[in-house]
Amino acid sequence: MRLSRYFLPVLKETPKEAEIISHRLMLRAGMISQQGAGMYAWLPLGYKVLGKIQRIIEEEQNRAGANQLLMPTLQSADLWRESGRYEAYGKEMLRMQDRHERDMLYGPTNEEMITHIFRTYVRSYKDLPLNLYHIQWKFRDEIRPRFGTMRSREFLMKDAYSFDVDKEAAVKAYQRMFVAYLRTYHRMGLTAIPMRAETGPIGGDLSHEFIVLADTGESGVFCHADLLQKPIPGPDTDFFGDLSGIVADWTSLYSATEDMHDEAEFDAKVPTDKRIAARGIEVGQVFYFGTKYSEPMGAKVTGPDGKDITVHMGSYGIGPTRIVPAIIEASHDDSGIVWPVSVAPFEVTLVNLKTGDAQTDAANEKLYGQLQAAGIDVLYDDRETGAGQKFATADLIGIPFQLIVGPRGLASGEVEIKHRKSGERETIGIEDAVARLKALIEPERRDAV
Amino acid sequence: MRLSRYFLPVLKETPKEAEIISHRLMLRAGMISQQGAGMYAWLPLGYKVLGKIQRIIEEEQNRAGANQLLMPTLQSADLWRESGRYEAYGKEMLRMQDRHERDMLYGPTNEEMITHIFRTYVRSYKDLPLNLYHIQWKFRDEIRPRFGTMRSREFLMKDAYSFDVDKEAAVKAYQRMFVAYLRTYHRMGLTAIPMRAETGPIGGDLSHEFIVLADTGESGVFCHADLLQKPIPGPDTDFFGDLSGIVADWTSLYSATEDMHDEAEFDAKVPTDKRIAARGIEVGQVFYFGTKYSEPMGAKVTGPDGKDITVHMGSYGIGPTRIVPAIIEASHDDSGIVWPVSVAPFEVTLVNLKTGDAQTDAANEKLYGQLQAAGIDVLYDDRETGAGQKFATADLIGIPFQLIVGPRGLASGEVEIKHRKSGERETIGIEDAVARLKALIEPERRDAV
Repeated sequence: MRLSRYFLPVLKETPKEAEIISHRLMLRAGMISQQGAGMYAWLPLGYKVLGKIQRIIEEEQNRAGANQLLMPTLQSADLWRESGRYEAYGKEMLRMQDRHERDMLYGPTNEEMITHIFRTYVRSYKDLPLNLYHIQWKFRDEIRPRFGTMRSREFLMKDAYSFDVDKEAAVKAYQRMFVAYLRTYHRMGLTAIPMRAETGPIGGDLSHEFIVLADTGESGVFCHADLLQKPIPGPDTDFFGDLSGIVADWTSLYSATEDMHDEAEFDAKVPTDKRIAARGIEVGQVFYFGTKYSEPMGAKVTGPDGKDITVHMGSYGIGPTRIVPAIIEASHDDSGIVWPVSVAPFEVTLVNLKTGDAQTDAANEKLYGQLQAAGIDVLYDDRETGAGQKFATADLIGIPFQLIVGPRGLASGEVEIKHRKSGERETIGIEDAVARLKALIEPERRDAV
Repeated sequence: MRLSRYFLPVLKETPKEAEIISHRLMLRAGMISQQGAGMYAWLPLGYKVLGKIQRIIEEEQNRAGANQLLMPTLQSADLWRESGRYEAYGKEMLRMQDRHERDMLYGPTNEEMITHIFRTYVRSYKDLPLNLYHIQWKFRDEIRPRFGTMRSREFLMKDAYSFDVDKEAAVKAYQRMFVAYLRTYHRMGLTAIPMRAETGPIGGDLSHEFIVLADTGESGVFCHADLLQKPIPGPDTDFFGDLSGIVADWTSLYSATEDMHDEAEFDAKVPTDKRIAARGIEVGQVFYFGTKYSEPMGAKVTGPDGKDITVHMGSYGIGPTRIVPAIIEASHDDSGIVWPVSVAPFEVTLVNLKTGDAQTDAANEKLYGQLQAAGIDVLYDDRETGAGQKFATADLIGIPFQLIVGPRGLASGEVEIKHRKSGERETIGIEDAVARLKALIEPERRDAV
């Protein structure tokens, strides 16, 4: 992409309304634009990050055997009356009436609708296990939306729902999502720790939140330090085999959010030098809730003996619009965002130090074509502005590598590569630059980690 | 994808509520599931088609220089009061109040919001031309939603908006979208004809609808038969060069929807044997509307002379959720859907004629792996059901090629390829099957047509 043709409205001033660093940086980097209380447009740079995050989520959900579909944003109130949540949900549910005065709502979550879809089509235990997921916009009318897209009213959510014949099978479904989540966050460059959590309005008796440690986190969290170093299950993990060992390993060490925290247990189980008491951002939650929805809504299958079985369910949420700021909270410096390669809007910024100079332009154009041909996602800063502004933009928007090409280096056949994260600079022959960048980028894409 | 793990609830009966063939087939093939009046969930098969259609749209929008972003589904009423459309829009606009009793609405279109985004960030004529688009869910509270997703209330729309310094530049922006649309439909296997159209509630004085001829179309259309055969501009089209010749060529022949039809002109301009009077489905519309929104909303840039210029705008819509049924209306037979390869949910169905037979299973598993490794999107029918049901499913869901593998053929090292569209069958050596399918599929993907 040529920056001269790209809509990237970076701001020079720090927006006053933003309380946390990720919100400030997302506004400054031209990633989002507020369109009402807790409502944001995702500008091209932000939208591109959001897309990369969605694709990682999809790949890992599919790997774990979940089926992607898409439910509508609006729902009929009748479905929620069946589960008893229509009245119970309170003011966070955005309600409306259509022109025929039918009660409708903007879905804050989809347990009811997916249970309805299940009962419409699935008849036999042979069709289980089944896990259906979608990535769709939700709305929760929070009384005080804040922190940008970290806590917005309209937000994007991946929500998966599992259906099984009994608790034992449902726990296996839970384990598949648990492991998929470990892989998902790891691929995004996040260290997310599963923690025992309360089940809240979803209900049920088994739940984990996945938490990224950050000073700006909303909740207090407590865990064993070794959880930060645990190896992540690889891409060869057999999701249709036994995952209980992996989950047991991860849940054997103490970890809990403040709601579930047990100080005595923490002290007893965790050596002093391994105790982490910190703040954290919730980036996902998994629930097993048994027959809470299937029972009142009549979601049953016929078992091998011909008798009806009420299915056991779980739900599994990840919020991509919350993960974007969570990554920024975890990865930034004084100059701006520092994207992990796997979710970076572009992998390389090609910085033309003297746009308008025929020889420099020609060298940059050639490299731009070569980078694209090598499959590298490149933003070419071809703007007619000074080098200082180009460096500031590249640093602010956090592209992992800058390829800097100017007349002085070209005179001796050299270009410079700057690593955004470390600040390290390498001078390299122009002929070797693309191969060098490819070697730097490919392992960091984490396609197969 | 293994069909045994895929959520594909095909129906045996023809649903009574569906009036047109595309609606019936989408329900029978397990593509969609109704969730309220004019509201549908897209089940995995339908969602996959919708995704392929979106990607083609995105590729062609990007090629034409448009920038993708994403605006929220809900909007503040205040924006629409600025343009004067809040009251004017009538009952098709779904209105609601949030918990603080602020008036909001579910966006039926986005002229107001994109104009607001533009005026927030863009200051100089140097930043133009600019075209911003998104693909987002919209809601129009139609009094009588019908025909499935052809005319649903919640629907997906790609809407692009162009901003230019004057009418001349805006017409060039219009031409870029006009040509992008020709390419977009062509890549989906649709013959869509641009027709002079009324501008309706969007306003403006220049508009074309893109129409697919179909007996079940909602509107009468009139055109010159040669428009059905016109060559489509290729992928090497220079979208930043002069496109006026292409547009003039396409608009030189008579074509108009019934609202704009001029019988005398039709008779005068079109020879009798070239007159097409038919029914059509609108699959997109492009508008130039000048300063209709930029004027009341104050969307201005500073010109080269330092004076303010009110920008000239256009908008450009394509509805992916309407294109899916439009393709089916144009391409089906008595057995079911006949997908063009470029939008097919899968390119090949691998039909195992004897699931459970060790040797047949092994041969199928091997082919399944080889097809995936060859980059072919394959659905492996590994269900423990009879061959008849497998053929019926493959025909119904419309996968372009069936690779049929059973014990009889395997005994002589042979498999069968069935072409869904022509019904043609080829017997081929098992070692040659993947290469043969690749050769059949690649040109039909239309990545580069």
